[in-house]
Amino acid sequence: MAVEPARTEYPPTGRAVDAEAADLRRTGLHPDFWYPVAVSRSVPRNSARAAVFAGERMALYRGASGTVYALEDRCAHRQVPLSMGVVEGEALRCCYHAWAYRGNGRISQIPYLPKGVGRPPRGVRSYPVREAYGLVFVFPGDPDKADRTPFPHLPEFGSPRYRTMTFSRTVRCHYSFMHENLLDMNHQFLHRGVLGRIRPELLGYETGPRSVEARYLFVPGGGRKDRGAGLLSAEGLGGGRDPDLITVRTEYPYQTLRAVPEKTGRPAFSLWVVYVPVDAEQRTHHAYGLLMIAKPPVPGVLRLAWPLIRRFAERVFAEDRMAVEAEQRAWDEQGADWNHEIFPVILDVREVLRRNGVPIRPASGRCGTAACPATEPPGEHQPPG
Amino acid sequence: MAVEPARTEYPPTGRAVDAEAADLRRTGLHPDFWYPVAVSRSVPRNSARAAVFAGERMALYRGASGTVYALEDRCAHRQVPLSMGVVEGEALRCCYHAWAYRGNGRISQIPYLPKGVGRPPRGVRSYPVREAYGLVFVFPGDPDKADRTPFPHLPEFGSPRYRTMTFSRTVRCHYSFMHENLLDMNHQFLHRGVLGRIRPELLGYETGPRSVEARYLFVPGGGRKDRGAGLLSAEGLGGGRDPDLITVRTEYPYQTLRAVPEKTGRPAFSLWVVYVPVDAEQRTHHAYGLLMIAKPPVPGVLRLAWPLIRRFAERVFAEDRMAVEAEQRAWDEQGADWNHEIFPVILDVREVLRRNGVPIRPASGRCGTAACPATEPPGEHQPPG
Amino acid sequence: MAVEPARTEYPPTGRAVDAEAADLRRTGLHPDFWYPVAVSRSVPRNSARAAVFAGERMALYRGASGTVYALEDRCAHRQVPLSMGVVEGEALRCCYHAWAYRGNGRISQIPYLPKGVGRPPRGVRSYPVREAYGLVFVFPGDPDKADRTPFPHLPEFGSPRYRTMTFSRTVRCHYSFMHENLLDMNHQFLHRGVLGRIRPELLGYETGPRSVEARYLFVPGGGRKDRGAGLLSAEGLGGGRDPDLITVRTEYPYQTLRAVPEKTGRPAFSLWVVYVPVDAEQRTHHAYGLLMIAKPPVPGVLRLAWPLIRRFAERVFAEDRMAVEAEQRAWDEQGADWNHEIFPVILDVREVLRRNGVPIRPASGRCGTAACPATEPPGEHQPPG
Repeated sequence: MAVEPARTEYPPTGRAVDAEAADLRRTGLHPDFWYPVAVSRSVPRNSARAAVFAGERMALYRGASGTVYALEDRCAHRQVPLSMGVVEGEALRCCYHAWAYRGNGRISQIPYLPKGVGRPPRGVRSYPVREAYGLVFVFPGDPDKADRTPFPHLPEFGSPRYRTMTFSRTVRCHYSFMHENLLDMNHQFLHRGVLGRIRPELLGYETGPRSVEARYLFVPGGGRKDRGAGLLSAEGLGGGRDPDLITVRTEYPYQTLRAVPEKTGRPAFSLWVVYVPVDAEQRTHHAYGLLMIAKPPVPGVLRLAWPLIRRFAERVFAEDRMAVEAEQRAWDEQGADWNHEIFPVILDVREVLRRNGVPIRPASGRCGTAACPATEPPGEHQPPG
Repeated sequence: MAVEPARTEYPPTGRAVDAEAADLRRTGLHPDFWYPVAVSRSVPRNSARAAVFAGERMALYRGASGTVYALEDRCAHRQVPLSMGVVEGEALRCCYHAWAYRGNGRISQIPYLPKGVGRPPRGVRSYPVREAYGLVFVFPGDPDKADRTPFPHLPEFGSPRYRTMTFSRTVRCHYSFMHENLLDMNHQFLHRGVLGRIRPELLGYETGPRSVEARYLFVPGGGRKDRGAGLLSAEGLGGGRDPDLITVRTEYPYQTLRAVPEKTGRPAFSLWVVYVPVDAEQRTHHAYGLLMIAKPPVPGVLRLAWPLIRRFAERVFAEDRMAVEAEQRAWDEQGADWNHEIFPVILDVREVLRRNGVPIRPASGRCGTAACPATEPPGEHQPPG
Repeated sequence: MAVEPARTEYPPTGRAVDAEAADLRRTGLHPDFWYPVAVSRSVPRNSARAAVFAGERMALYRGASGTVYALEDRCAHRQVPLSMGVVEGEALRCCYHAWAYRGNGRISQIPYLPKGVGRPPRGVRSYPVREAYGLVFVFPGDPDKADRTPFPHLPEFGSPRYRTMTFSRTVRCHYSFMHENLLDMNHQFLHRGVLGRIRPELLGYETGPRSVEARYLFVPGGGRKDRGAGLLSAEGLGGGRDPDLITVRTEYPYQTLRAVPEKTGRPAFSLWVVYVPVDAEQRTHHAYGLLMIAKPPVPGVLRLAWPLIRRFAERVFAEDRMAVEAEQRAWDEQGADWNHEIFPVILDVREVLRRNGVPIRPASGRCGTAACPATEPPGEHQPPG
């Protein structure tokens, strides 16, 4: 993976270490990256739908040409969601008073505009959009940085030697709990019913300014095991009974897991995943995952095993979700992070996530009192001409 | 309509223009008017029920004589709702320890009153009540002003030439969104599926200190149309194919819409509606509407068409509700009003609603911390003797 | 009952009368008593479950030996609830990374503990536990006081002349509303449909520093009555038609009700009940009740009547719940206690509850902003060796 924006564009480190930001769960995901916010097939041609990044609501729509656009999801007129609107060619028309917008956010028509009264607003914010890997990615941060920010590179996705299973689901916890979950393979006890007993051995790990990579040896320890687990591991589709080498890597803001059987040296499977914050306080995220599985020598076997593998993955995920959501609830109750971490890999990834993130903005004016001001001034957006 | 309380009784304008009240959605509906809080038939003889005005809970009950009374909905003893109580003649007895109240709020009996201990409270607040048009109206403001405050006058309601359809439903938005919705007929795009394409033409409008009236010509523009729409419009029951003249008027705090076919000059239908705040923050209201429809020359036709007309009205209302509730959600998220209004009629009605309203009191002590004091001191009410 | 901890161990009275604590509904139940937090049969051998006292979450588990233990319900590692864990012998293992705890809260094993890194925490808090009367009691306060704090003494429970019905349910109100409900028998109007008309006569009452006892004569006043009511009263199982002497006693923090027919002088039934706060703000409690009913001379009659008696008790309880939950809602809305009490027995019990309680701690950091700090510092617990 090659996402490498210049470090100097980040918020100065000074801000990240002050009292509030020191709590990892109050650290926001940095918006200056490409993030999926929808599965491509959920945005059919000539239709609109809502999406969100960390409380920023977006209207995604696919025009007649097939291109997907992402606009701020509030009409400039009365803030009704544009995702409730109607697609006309490459434009999106608000459902209420029929104001129409171009894909760049500029207003293209106000049907009843009275002459000489009340200069209308210019439009709404638009987001850079790219489609790849069956997902719609947006760039929620500074749009000027979109072009020079590396896009996730997944060579296995297009390879005829792999087949991809897509995951998309909402999890009620801060994204950081997920990075910690996957990187700390000592949590296999949680999956003992599905995976059987596994003894993970940490072989080594490396930490960079924006990454942590840990290598484990998974030694089978006996016990009943879900059939999907066997199929997915080297033993099943790959053949042998050797231990698997599992490499987990957080490369900010993405995460990957690769399983390489000792014998073959080629990944039996490779998982790419990203945890996209949903709410402004980032206590909920939407996980998008691509599980790329090597096709075994015998044709058709993988296709037959597909439902079992999906069921296995869903079971493992359900257990992880139970644990990480319990962690979030504990944090909510405590109002602070009380973790006593002892595992160096996790201490490192916490620091990476903290240093590369941004402070979470204070809660929105939900309570509606004067003491809760608006999250941001309403000032006019200046979309490109 | 002839509601015309003296302007001098209003809160000084100075308060309405300060920082907080400047947000229209933080402006409360003025309590010194007559407001419906229940449909008459929902308060049968010898029964009690709960009602509310802007967070002020009321117990309505109808005594043996048929008279309806409105009391503060909390027993003076332990604040259990009196609406859970039992009607005895013209009195209301609390369900818990059986304290009894007269219709004026005075305590008429405490069954077990110990001698010489703890002077009991005198009673609870009562509200002036009037029944008309199949609705129970109360006067939630200063009771001394009730008698001299004009009561809504609806000549069509009693006329043998009209038949009335009653609406009563809760909508999760500030009442002001509803005034703006009805007055701005440019929102017909929202109803394109039900009404077909209509081109509304603003003929003119007038603004007074407490009113805004806009006149539109509705020119049919083709497209499929709900059958109820046809029946309701001049074309249907009235006959012709001429455009309708639609007059929408906010006469604080009420609103009316009259449809007059060009040919006849007599209203084909007339809608009277009022949006009564439910919660203290006035983010939800209950809309009471009376739709008075002219009977066509052929007897019985209107009765046959009745279900179609109701279905049509419900469909239109469902679409409006979707839009105005989306506006409220946007306001909640933003914590402020970001509207960019360009239509002069709406700019005027916003000013009328702002100037005639009252500041919304801060939220109640729901959170139960010391930082959230009670909304008002518990001090004894002094109901009339 | 013989619960008599030294008065000097209580918080100084000075704290109880300051502004905030003066509101009875902001007074917490004193933690230095034995409180049931589960029915025994809900904690089978080798299983764990969650319990709670005033927002303090506990993991209860029963080891292989049959002993029940109570630990703080958050793993010292990442605060995942230990009640989600796995019992191994007399130890409890966290479900996530498999840290294991002894019944005293000390960590007994961390399976993958790396050498020389990050001194692990010593463990979590544990609570003294006792099982009796089919309930699991814990001592949530200062554990050093547990041994010398008297345990509830219920002679009828073990007597062959009585049979016990157990109640366990959650009620959404402050525990004080329940003490007031049971002590003020003038609320029989609430139960007129179930109990018929009863005229309660206060014979007398006594107040001590930690108790209030009121004696009533219940004179039947006619009216239809639930069959269970008849069976439960002296008339039914005991025989006669004399009035019952009802004695209600709050002996902090417990409450009892005894019904003694005038003729026999022996309790026809005796109710022991305690209201255990659930949430930190103590706006919800869990009521545990033991209704001990004298067996009538004819064997088997009580067993036959059992379902009717339970149904009767459930009906009475449902009515009480409706009233006390309405009281709590009124308090929530008002943000303060507006009660106008006139009955001396209740004025006294309010004072007893206020003086023997503790201030309720401010709300937890749920909202997650910097303005809401954690409820308590995360500092290491020091469980016994």
